[in-house]
Amino acid sequence: MFDSRARKVALFGMAERTRHTALLSDFLAGKRTALARAISIVESQRDGFEDVLHALHERVGAAQRVGITGPPGAGKSTLTAALVQGFRHNEETVGVVAVDPTSPFTGGALLGDRIRMNEVALDPGVYIRSMATRGSLGGLAVTTREVVDVVDAFGFDRVLMETVGVGQSELDIAAAADTTIVVLVPESGDSIQAMKAGLMEISDIFVINKADRPGAERLAREVDMMLHFRSGRALKNVSAKDSASWRIPVLQTVAESGKGVSEVAAALDQHRAWLEASGELVRRRQSRAAERVREVVGRGISEHVWQERGGEAILQEALPDLLSGQATPYEVAARIVRAVTG
Amino acid sequence: MFDSRARKVALFGMAERTRHTALLSDFLAGKRTALARAISIVESQRDGFEDVLHALHERVGAAQRVGITGPPGAGKSTLTAALVQGFRHNEETVGVVAVDPTSPFTGGALLGDRIRMNEVALDPGVYIRSMATRGSLGGLAVTTREVVDVVDAFGFDRVLMETVGVGQSELDIAAAADTTIVVLVPESGDSIQAMKAGLMEISDIFVINKADRPGAERLAREVDMMLHFRSGRALKNVSAKDSASWRIPVLQTVAESGKGVSEVAAALDQHRAWLEASGELVRRRQSRAAERVREVVGRGISEHVWQERGGEAILQEALPDLLSGQATPYEVAARIVRAVTG
Repeated sequence: MFDSRARKVALFGMAERTRHTALLSDFLAGKRTALARAISIVESQRDGFEDVLHALHERVGAAQRVGITGPPGAGKSTLTAALVQGFRHNEETVGVVAVDPTSPFTGGALLGDRIRMNEVALDPGVYIRSMATRGSLGGLAVTTREVVDVVDAFGFDRVLMETVGVGQSELDIAAAADTTIVVLVPESGDSIQAMKAGLMEISDIFVINKADRPGAERLAREVDMMLHFRSGRALKNVSAKDSASWRIPVLQTVAESGKGVSEVAAALDQHRAWLEASGELVRRRQSRAAERVREVVGRGISEHVWQERGGEAILQEALPDLLSGQATPYEVAARIVRAVTG
Repeated sequence: MFDSRARKVALFGMAERTRHTALLSDFLAGKRTALARAISIVESQRDGFEDVLHALHERVGAAQRVGITGPPGAGKSTLTAALVQGFRHNEETVGVVAVDPTSPFTGGALLGDRIRMNEVALDPGVYIRSMATRGSLGGLAVTTREVVDVVDAFGFDRVLMETVGVGQSELDIAAAADTTIVVLVPESGDSIQAMKAGLMEISDIFVINKADRPGAERLAREVDMMLHFRSGRALKNVSAKDSASWRIPVLQTVAESGKGVSEVAAALDQHRAWLEASGELVRRRQSRAAERVREVVGRGISEHVWQERGGEAILQEALPDLLSGQATPYEVAARIVRAVTG
């Protein structure tokens, strides 16, 4: 850690050192308040947040990072809470990052889920952080991944990320996870149909929750068939190792009562062992690190273009012409790119 | 149009002129094959696609652009088809862009919806285009909006964009639409709860579909209450005009039988009239144009950084150090930003 802090100082200078040194040493001492503050700094992208991430980076990756996704109402929070209880039974510590689709305006839409989570939230071996989604394009994705890094770096044995998802948010979570669990429920029928294909791409483990309801067996068979179909089709696109050695399990749970949850925990351990043995863990981490570089460069360049090099001023000046049709967005963009790169 | 083409030539040079002139003149002559080709060029971001968009830009905005979003299984496709039939009854032409969550691997997950859409698809006054979602971050959002521009520029009276959504995809569609319809169904209960707040932010019109099922009235009242609650809370964040003058209607339909659909069409016309009278249409278009400039600059700068200025080479060279922990993503990113901006 001191190594890393020394590197940070060399990179970013003395000002940064005085700004976050106290926070970092509290964080390393395991203080919860420092964890909460570090997350807030990263989540809101406050000044120096990349320095915090840089300083913590070498501690990232010790936790098993598990993404839990699926349609609304599938019982993801309940399954998450049940998994947490199982891990705690084995004296493992757990961090939970919940990506919350509730808007800042209305607040409590997920209240029921939160109450369930509170049963585990009082346990000092558990840390739960809920993140609001934001309207700004891509903003959510980037900071969620980095918040997960902060929680990981704090030293939990497992970090669970829970997200409602069709579309982008589940892909984002899958990109930040070592292992992704997709949760479905029997009764969703047709609506699940529309999601399954996309979810198929990111799943390492399938869970049919509320499996005491009618249709669970049928859905499990269907998912199994789709997975089989996919592994045939996908062979040309993925490495042989990837598709051949990990057979995605389709498990059934009743998370509310805890039925089947230990099998999910066992599958998590098996997947972790497979990731390590196959070299896939290294591959996933490498691609995560490369993706992170792209994101950070994107942020830096964007600031450079729009603020330092005056892109924003050119855009504001062009707005009347854009609206009147005197200029197209493509012309204005070309003007800005020329001004910046020329 | 010739004006615009002349501008394009001045901007991008003779090579571009020979590349797409034939396509553009076929497009302007109303040839469907040219529309399909133009969409393909934009969707796949083939060479010169921004020139096509530039050339068509002045024709964008004549259509009413309607986003239709909501959870899977809400009957969005059926409602879309019913709306199309209504518009056709009045001899209006309609373009439909469906954002399809089906992965390229599995193809036909939305087959049922497609069959319903085919009833209207044989009508020569209707054009339907289905878009696959992509794993690449943000890639979908940007090209979907630009595909909608192409369809708009072709001269349809209405352009409907249909998307399954929780999270990012619905925000993207809302950003591309003049008017956004959020479709819910009574029986989704708890699961809807989780979505409503986010959907609340983007809705101009709410539709409770399958309203012949139990719970429709209750859900309509609930949504109405949440809207009321929001308008109170939101006042400090939006212009008084925006929140005060448009009262978001909560309509009930049975799209399958056509019940209530003409009320939705009427609400679309009312919202269009309000957008024009209040100046909100101009405001939405201005923000759309500015957003488009940002996207196009982002693409251009990204290419500049990663290809022309060698960012990709620096990243590839740093990958072993990233993996071994000798460097953090933040250091590598700083190195690339310095190389590019220094």
